[in-house]
Amino acid sequence: MGKLNLYQMKKVEIIVRGEDLDFVLDLLEKAGVKGYTIIHNLSGKGSHGFHEGHLLFNEEDVLDMVISVMPEEKVEAILEGLTPFFNKHSGVVFVSDVQVSRLEKFKNG
Amino acid sequence: MGKLNLYQMKKVEIIVRGEDLDFVLDLLEKAGVKGYTIIHNLSGKGSHGFHEGHLLFNEEDVLDMVISVMPEEKVEAILEGLTPFFNKHSGVVFVSDVQVSRLEKFKNG
Amino acid sequence: MGKLNLYQMKKVEIIVRGEDLDFVLDLLEKAGVKGYTIIHNLSGKGSHGFHEGHLLFNEEDVLDMVISVMPEEKVEAILEGLTPFFNKHSGVVFVSDVQVSRLEKFKNG
Repeated sequence: MGKLNLYQMKKVEIIVRGEDLDFVLDLLEKAGVKGYTIIHNLSGKGSHGFHEGHLLFNEEDVLDMVISVMPEEKVEAILEGLTPFFNKHSGVVFVSDVQVSRLEKFKNG
Repeated sequence: MGKLNLYQMKKVEIIVRGEDLDFVLDLLEKAGVKGYTIIHNLSGKGSHGFHEGHLLFNEEDVLDMVISVMPEEKVEAILEGLTPFFNKHSGVVFVSDVQVSRLEKFKNG
Repeated sequence: MGKLNLYQMKKVEIIVRGEDLDFVLDLLEKAGVKGYTIIHNLSGKGSHGFHEGHLLFNEEDVLDMVISVMPEEKVEAILEGLTPFFNKHSGVVFVSDVQVSRLEKFKNG
């Protein structure tokens, strides 16, 4: 088998309360993100998240993590959509570098 | 306590349908990967994955994510084993950089 | 909306047996880490982890993964707290780079 080609993409991980999951999935779809994976029933605590102050996860919250891999140019739209949402709802978003083997699945044609 | 030594390794995250989990674990074992962790019962949607076309996750699929940390030289064997498999089965693989505190556990002696 | 500011932080992922979760959460709290997320009921196998030798996950273990994002200067305290613990208990820790949109939530004031 020949040389593998790895492409640099961004992994976006968004953690929200289960009741807010649909907002996140709608946001991804509107941004043209082509796929995601959801880890259900996480728990969390504390004040990590966008907004300084009163909105926090607590130990009773049931959370979901949405993982999506996308080209870097889509990340800004996702973060801009999350920012006003996270002013009223608890949530966290992390962005990291990831490599994938083929590019076709993550780009709009 | 003295200075910690962090070593650069690769984290490989593989998402497949539950029915395909054993293939992935066998592949890791054959490549000499020494350990892995599995997150069960994820859901997913969309067309991220290797193969452009007809094979996609849909909302009814129950997925597993296998997380494994390995030296960079093992990653190619894993990706080469996954490529033909992902021509027939839905799946996603992400590779990223990660640091671990000790190297011994991740290398074959 | 203006330019987003992304800050470089460290993501620390710690995988331990469920019975050892409280130790990890106490360690994070003592280090002044402000938040975390827990993925429950993972399974795992093999010898990845700190300590070469007899302490391993096996297929019957029920594991938890604690994910926490923190400034780099807190990582060393976490790793130093885990090292003696991992001499007696199975566990794995991975450190990686991650970007977050705002810094305030992750730093002590």
